[in-house]
Order: sequence, then C-alpha cells, then structure tokens
Amino acid sequence: MKKLINEVGNYVTEMLDGLVAAVPSLRRVEGTQVLLRANLKDKVGLVSGGGSGHEPAHAGYVGTGMLDAAVAGEVFTSPTPDQILTAIRAVHRGKGVLLIVKNYTGDVMNFEMAADLAHAQGIEVAQVVVDDDVAVEGSTYTVGRRGIAGTVWVHKIAGAAAEAGLSLEEVQRVASKVVTHVRSMGMALSACTVPAHGRPSFALAESEVEMGIGIHGEPGVERRKLGTSAATVDFLLERIFANLSLQSCDAVAVMVNGLGATPLSELYIANRRVAEVCQEKNLQVQQTLVGEFMTSLEMAGFSLSVLKLDEELQNYLNAPAYAPAWPQTERGE
Amino acid sequence: MKKLINEVGNYVTEMLDGLVAAVPSLRRVEGTQVLLRANLKDKVGLVSGGGSGHEPAHAGYVGTGMLDAAVAGEVFTSPTPDQILTAIRAVHRGKGVLLIVKNYTGDVMNFEMAADLAHAQGIEVAQVVVDDDVAVEGSTYTVGRRGIAGTVWVHKIAGAAAEAGLSLEEVQRVASKVVTHVRSMGMALSACTVPAHGRPSFALAESEVEMGIGIHGEPGVERRKLGTSAATVDFLLERIFANLSLQSCDAVAVMVNGLGATPLSELYIANRRVAEVCQEKNLQVQQTLVGEFMTSLEMAGFSLSVLKLDEELQNYLNAPAYAPAWPQTERGE
Repeated sequence: MKKLINEVGNYVTEMLDGLVAAVPSLRRVEGTQVLLRANLKDKVGLVSGGGSGHEPAHAGYVGTGMLDAAVAGEVFTSPTPDQILTAIRAVHRGKGVLLIVKNYTGDVMNFEMAADLAHAQGIEVAQVVVDDDVAVEGSTYTVGRRGIAGTVWVHKIAGAAAEAGLSLEEVQRVASKVVTHVRSMGMALSACTVPAHGRPSFALAESEVEMGIGIHGEPGVERRKLGTSAATVDFLLERIFANLSLQSCDAVAVMVNGLGATPLSELYIANRRVAEVCQEKNLQVQQTLVGEFMTSLEMAGFSLSVLKLDEELQNYLNAPAYAPAWPQTERGE
Repeated sequence: MKKLINEVGNYVTEMLDGLVAAVPSLRRVEGTQVLLRANLKDKVGLVSGGGSGHEPAHAGYVGTGMLDAAVAGEVFTSPTPDQILTAIRAVHRGKGVLLIVKNYTGDVMNFEMAADLAHAQGIEVAQVVVDDDVAVEGSTYTVGRRGIAGTVWVHKIAGAAAEAGLSLEEVQRVASKVVTHVRSMGMALSACTVPAHGRPSFALAESEVEMGIGIHGEPGVERRKLGTSAATVDFLLERIFANLSLQSCDAVAVMVNGLGATPLSELYIANRRVAEVCQEKNLQVQQTLVGEFMTSLEMAGFSLSVLKLDEELQNYLNAPAYAPAWPQTERGE
C-alpha cells in the first residue's frame, strides 16, 4: 500500500485536524469527528455525514446556505449514533434538525438511532435518505438504490431552504423533492485501497472497466472493455435518463464527478459529450458541476448525475452559499 | 494506457469544449485554444498559459480579479506564439498586457516571441517568469528553477492589482514581488502517462518515491523509501524554508497541492503537519489552500508552496475574486 499517511488508525482524525487548520469557517466539536459551521444560525439545523474516504464529502459542504454539521465515520464506515447525536445537539436551535443520509444500511441504522436518542431529549428530527444511484437495486452495503454524488445537491438545496427560514417540515419536503428528482451512475477504471485493509478492493484487467461501480468499490452491473469517453458517457446517461422522466425544454443540473484519480481534463472531455447529449434532448442545463464532489479515495473513474429542476429547486440551487467544496458561481455576461 | 478519452489528438480541444460548456463566465476565441473572461474590463490585461495536463491550471484561473486569458498548449507542450498573440490581442484594452510565464525553456521562448509580435503591433507587453520550485537548478525542460504551483498566487495577486487599476509597470512590480516571495517543492508516488506517448514517463518501485519531482515527471533530487506523511512534509518544507528568508511572526500563505491522483484526505493529513511546523516557527498563516491547483495528469503525489506576505501582497490576496478553480473564502466568526 503506497499512501501518504502516518498511522493507519489516525487517518480520519488527522485528516480532520488538517481540514480545520485549513478552513477558518469550520469548527470541530472537541474530541469528536463532528465538524460545524463556525457561524451557526437560528434556523432548522442540517446534519449529514457518513464514512470517510469520499472527500470533500461531507465536511466540504458545511457552511453558509449548506450543512450545519458533518459527521465523519472511519473510512467507508458509518459514523456511530453518539457522534451523530453530538452533531444534532450542537446544531439544534429550537427549530429542529434534518438529517441527510445516503442509503447504506449502516448509515440508515445509525442516523435513525441518533434521531431516536435526540427525540428522547426533546429535539425534533426529520430525515431524508438519498438513493440516486440507478446502477443496481441492492448491493454489498445496502437494500435498494445506493446514495452517491447526487447527495451534494440535497445539501445545497435543503441548505438554501433552511437558510431562507423554512420550517423543518418544509425543508424536509424540499430535500425529498431533490431526492425524487436526482439520478446518478458511475464507472471505474481502477479500484481504491482502504488504508486499514492495505490492498485494492478488486482488480480490473488493463483494458477492463466496471460500469455501475459503487463509491466503496461495490460491484456494478457489468465489466466491459474500456470504450471511448463519449461511449462511456452515453452508457451512463442512457440509464440515468431511463430513470428520470424528462421532457424537451426541462431544466436540469448536471454533474461530472471524479472518483479520485481521474484528471480534471478527462472530466471536461466527458462533459463535452454530456453537454452534447443534453442539447440533443433539448434540455436546458442550468448548472454544470465538473470536479471531485464525492470521491472514493484514489479510485479512477467518474460518475454522472442529473437533477431535474422546477422553479423552486432552481431558486434554491442559485441561492448564494459558501462551503469549502461548493464551487463559486458567477454568471457570464 | 487506460484513459477516459476519445481521440488522443483531440485531447486538448475536447477538454476546452467541455470546460466552456460547464463555465458560463468563460469564452473561447473561436478556432483557438485561448480562453477569455466573458466580462473583459478596461484595465491591464493578464495572460498566462502553458502546456495542458495541469488542470485546473491555467484556464481555471481566468475570471474576475485573476487572469483575463489562458492559452492551452498540447499536453506538457508550450502553446505556440500565434495562440499567445491571439490572447494578448483579445485582452488588450489600451493599457498593456502582462504575461505570466512558468520557467520552462519552450514557454519562455514562445511567450517572448508573442510579446515581440505584439510590440510590433503597438501593444505594450511586460512579463514575469515564475521559478518557485526549489528542487533543482536546471532540469529536463529548463534552465534555472522550474515554475510550479506557486504560479497560482501570481495569478491571484497580479489579478487583484490589475483589477484595482494599477498601471502595467505597477502590476509587473507586484507580480515580480510574488515571484520573489514564493517557493515550492513536490514529490511523487507514481508517474503519469502523456496520452500521446501511451506509457508512464518513469517507474517507481512499490515502496519508492521521488522527491523534488517536476510537474512533467522531470527528475527530482532523490529517490527514497516512502516515509510517513509528516516526514515527507518535513523534507519538503525544510528545503522551501532554506530558500525563503522568514522570521518569527512573518505572515505567509501555504498551499498543499495534489498532483492528480492523491486523495483530498491525504492532502489534509499533510496539511496537519504543515500547520504544526508553521506554528513551531511562529509563522502567521493567513491563507491555506488544500486541493488540486496545478496537477500533472494522474500523477500521485503533492507539492507544498509557501508565500511570504507583506501588507501589499496580503491585501491583494484577500481581494475578492471569481474564477472556476479559485476557492471561495469566507472568514470564520
């Protein structure tokens, strides 16, 4: 295993040290793996999190108009209920807390347990479970579809709704609408190595790729010969569009998400075809995100996500936000 | 070669297509590899560029308060003088144009040739050559020190100076001051593969790393056994600090720059030690950038950069800016 680390057992906690040292707008709850906005506001609280190894998710989305707290588990392992409860208590300002959970059995169980504990302490808690990955129904770590990169838009849009002062019930409604409207699928050229395991989670031949890979290296739908970038994009988009009822003139946001080791240049090459297909389908692309938003350590490959926008989602998507990993946006003139 | 591409020969032009499709604030000069700010202003123009394969450099730094144009050469190959001239002509608003060039023989020659052609057309042009890499004096592609990730701060600070309305001579003075005050050094765990070559540019054994590697895979100073992250950081910082006269209480900016395939989590782990060392030296860290700013395709490894700040540089560094790859900044409360 060739990694730039110190002690394997300190991976997550040292990463959080380095993150907090870099970003003055983040604060860590002492002795925990919980990161908070330094400027918590009097509004519905938003908490997300999950296993580490997906950076910048989720701490990179903590900030104004996005999350109030992110809870980091060990690599590819759900955070524990007590850490999640710590986050809930830290962000609660009397208006309740929404949990944004990716659909993995461990995450769902631990976030629900934390919600129960918070309820028992008189804190109103609601949750949404993100299941945007159309690749497979049921996989190594979950029942139903998995939650992957589309989760980032739930953070952004629910975050804007909370920042606008909506009630917990309303923020949950808006977040659920994003979940209903977003679909993703990914593919890998190579595996990643979980530090504690010390070896790659699977092996692919030199010309082989895995379509529909999960962000923990869970099996996808098909191993096939590596094709062109455009053919790869077409394969993924076809399955995404089949799961999302879109009509001509619909507004969408699209994301080309690198899994960790794919050069940004290749993500842009992929986006060239994404833009072309959206134009062919006469979709109105309101936002294009290209970069690393939800990674899988040093896995090579990418995922595509499409979010169908109505006016409400579009307004919240365009609302100003600041978080370390949320890209700046400035419209051309 | 396992890459997400279409035709090798279209790598750069397809990447630029996908970039412009994603970023509404960028405009491409038709039929060229020149990208412009959509909202060009009446001020000193700033042009940079170089070989592709270093994304987000340099097009990611085109925007308000940063560059006015970036010229993309083929992968690891200088852009041609006629493309650079196109950029100069496009951004010239009667106040002259500053060229920001990384110190590689091909780049220096082609930017100088373009400057001569522009002079002949009555455009006042000045330039700065960035040579922040302390690893080696002279290397495969250059005489003297190489220009690497520290270049990003030249874009930011010269960009702010130009945006503030300074004259060409003054913007050049500020840019030169950044060059004088910035030092960097990198290391690699693995090589990258130039698409047109089809195979990795060098090979390292499983436990071996190369210290002082260049961003095109040029040789560094030493091959050694992979140590801990902290020991690696110490090795690089020691050489950087030896080349930068810093005193207790000096203000600095630091950058932990991923070369392409290094997980963000590992960059944060490195930053933990960077912050520790800066604290031991009693340096005042005013800005910490952690991410991919100047890459080398899918090379695994990272570079560190340190910029010594005086009041003038600090003000321009903190001035608002928008460019696709420049991180948002919001101060904690």
